[in-house]
Amino acid sequence: MNFPVLYLRKGAERRLRAGHLWVYSNEVDIKRSPLTGFEAGVQAELRASNDKPLGTVFVNPHALICGRLISRDPTHGMTSQRLTQRMEVALELRQRLFNKPFYRWVFGDSDGLSGLVIDRFGDTVVVQISSAGMEQMKDAIIRAIQRLTQVSSIVLKNDGKMRKVEGLESYVEQAHGNAPEMLQLEENGVKFEVPLAGGQKTGWFYDHRMNRARLQAYAPGKRVLDVFSYVGGWGIQAASAGATSVTCIDSSASAIESVHHNARLNGLTNVDTIEGDAFDALKALADEKQKFDIVVLDPPALIPRRRDQKAGEQAYARLNQLGLRLLERDGLLVSASCSMHLSQEKLVDIIRGSGRKIDRFVQLLEQGHQAPDHPIIPGIAETDYIKSCFVRSLTGFL
Amino acid sequence: MNFPVLYLRKGAERRLRAGHLWVYSNEVDIKRSPLTGFEAGVQAELRASNDKPLGTVFVNPHALICGRLISRDPTHGMTSQRLTQRMEVALELRQRLFNKPFYRWVFGDSDGLSGLVIDRFGDTVVVQISSAGMEQMKDAIIRAIQRLTQVSSIVLKNDGKMRKVEGLESYVEQAHGNAPEMLQLEENGVKFEVPLAGGQKTGWFYDHRMNRARLQAYAPGKRVLDVFSYVGGWGIQAASAGATSVTCIDSSASAIESVHHNARLNGLTNVDTIEGDAFDALKALADEKQKFDIVVLDPPALIPRRRDQKAGEQAYARLNQLGLRLLERDGLLVSASCSMHLSQEKLVDIIRGSGRKIDRFVQLLEQGHQAPDHPIIPGIAETDYIKSCFVRSLTGFL
Repeated sequence: MNFPVLYLRKGAERRLRAGHLWVYSNEVDIKRSPLTGFEAGVQAELRASNDKPLGTVFVNPHALICGRLISRDPTHGMTSQRLTQRMEVALELRQRLFNKPFYRWVFGDSDGLSGLVIDRFGDTVVVQISSAGMEQMKDAIIRAIQRLTQVSSIVLKNDGKMRKVEGLESYVEQAHGNAPEMLQLEENGVKFEVPLAGGQKTGWFYDHRMNRARLQAYAPGKRVLDVFSYVGGWGIQAASAGATSVTCIDSSASAIESVHHNARLNGLTNVDTIEGDAFDALKALADEKQKFDIVVLDPPALIPRRRDQKAGEQAYARLNQLGLRLLERDGLLVSASCSMHLSQEKLVDIIRGSGRKIDRFVQLLEQGHQAPDHPIIPGIAETDYIKSCFVRSLTGFL
Repeated sequence: MNFPVLYLRKGAERRLRAGHLWVYSNEVDIKRSPLTGFEAGVQAELRASNDKPLGTVFVNPHALICGRLISRDPTHGMTSQRLTQRMEVALELRQRLFNKPFYRWVFGDSDGLSGLVIDRFGDTVVVQISSAGMEQMKDAIIRAIQRLTQVSSIVLKNDGKMRKVEGLESYVEQAHGNAPEMLQLEENGVKFEVPLAGGQKTGWFYDHRMNRARLQAYAPGKRVLDVFSYVGGWGIQAASAGATSVTCIDSSASAIESVHHNARLNGLTNVDTIEGDAFDALKALADEKQKFDIVVLDPPALIPRRRDQKAGEQAYARLNQLGLRLLERDGLLVSASCSMHLSQEKLVDIIRGSGRKIDRFVQLLEQGHQAPDHPIIPGIAETDYIKSCFVRSLTGFL
């Protein structure tokens, strides 16, 4: 292949050499290689300012992330064959780890497929494309899915907010087979059905699967509060594992409806719900002097952007304090975060501070991360976002 | 109780208020409360420079850690009753989490019992006392163990190196029942027998139990190399889980003997060993062009003291590179550390750098920590020491 060349400014190759896969538009030497000369989604060879080849990239002149590394070999462009091979390498890992076909099959950069996410729900596969380069590979992606699996339904859920940034239109399309109304899945032995169309992202978050499995170890005989429950991922699994009772809080009426649906699906009669703002609901429960053995906090990203750091950390602190207050004298707080901008260390420190503030002796029992179907690439901080802390809280202990 | 008072210097209460439990000798106001006025192991009330009571402490005037917080309530000294209660709270957690009586029952400060470690091996309990204060409670500890459990043997393995620092003599004593020659235990469903007398610490390290359980998920059908194997904790569990073959490397002849013993104990015939220096053995295997599907690196603390930081980090980097080199094109590196001075973040960065150096695409699949029978106290960095990274290494992938 003969690729056009994208030149970096001096020193801009450093992050790439350290393991990252992105090129930012201000790192391009636009005198040598004007971005305006590239069409969105084309492939190019990437070179350092000293002409050393760094590999190949998908280019999008309109996006802040204007280059996404395809390969560190400057002769290797993205082809149907290479795409299929990488999807196969990704699939092998998931098949090795999970005995049922419910997992994130492709996790973008982490699987060498920047801009592509594929979630598998048994016979249904949901694809999300979020870069101009990957959009060019759309047909090849569908073919690769069909070649590697015998799924009956492939949905392109191309309505993520990153598409606008990349200049891509927003659409949902049935690429193969018939669209299911509900996605059916199993996680840690528990069944779920979630609506495809109205759901968040692809419909389900597999990223906390290992942490939810650990919750099951603590749940038997316990009263559990699942805050920001969404469709009940944590709560229903706790109930299935033998929790005495589970209360799910979520502000979305359709999520609450899903909680009830999933409780019925698993034959559970001890799951109730509170529809409303989580902070308000927690305060109301505290006012009523309600207590729980286990409180799970899995809020949406409270630090969506770097500039929200301080306010976001304060929100996490408020939330964790509220959670601790609702615990019995010997209780378990499961405090999760999906904010890329909140480090594990900082979350632990917030829990420390919250415990001290209300005089609880807190023991950090377990620290969970995103599941192995969401690999982290060391060197790409953006691939690392999920954390959870399992904290025993003791009152009047020390 | 009427306790003598230990006064802190101005501002020295800050760390304690933040969650720590130790007082350093240079933090004491020796004009108001000369340390020479305290006998080793006595209890005292602790006060801030403004006279505010901070709680009670065990005092040891001879040790750098001259005060260990007993309670934040200045009227609560350590009594037989309080000791028994804390041991019971600790036991409840372990009994909730583990269905067989094999665990670290008490983990010092983390269980509100500074200077005390108790490991349980079924009917045998091994106690380690490492502070002058706790030494005073020796008889009460034995009584509490007998009251809370029906174990047949209690061994005081008081030969740790911290005892010298506290001015305590070194001894091993059978406090109850008959000393077993071999400790018998089960971890993740796999049986082990380890010598009590000659072993490291209490004889077994339960701290990696959760990480070893995760290794079992990856092991079936794989060739596994267990580096710094000790008695085979990782390797034997991998073999039991269905690894095709396991090779254990350790420099200790008695550890190697234990590996073979434990392989036989579990009816395994596919475990072989290399006795020798791990770095040398890894280089030799690389020279022979040997390859493995899984390489486990669980070295002793390579950064024993803060001043060893740089050399230690370099040793971890060399080790991880050697490990990666021995992997097949699609292999798994399990890289562990028990150095308190090596953060999880730094270990991940060392793996990142090692992967880049030899051009592997590394996916961080899982991050493990110490097991919940070794709780971490946020605010006491010293309680946090175990980490492990499960890393998929791909050659020629990107």
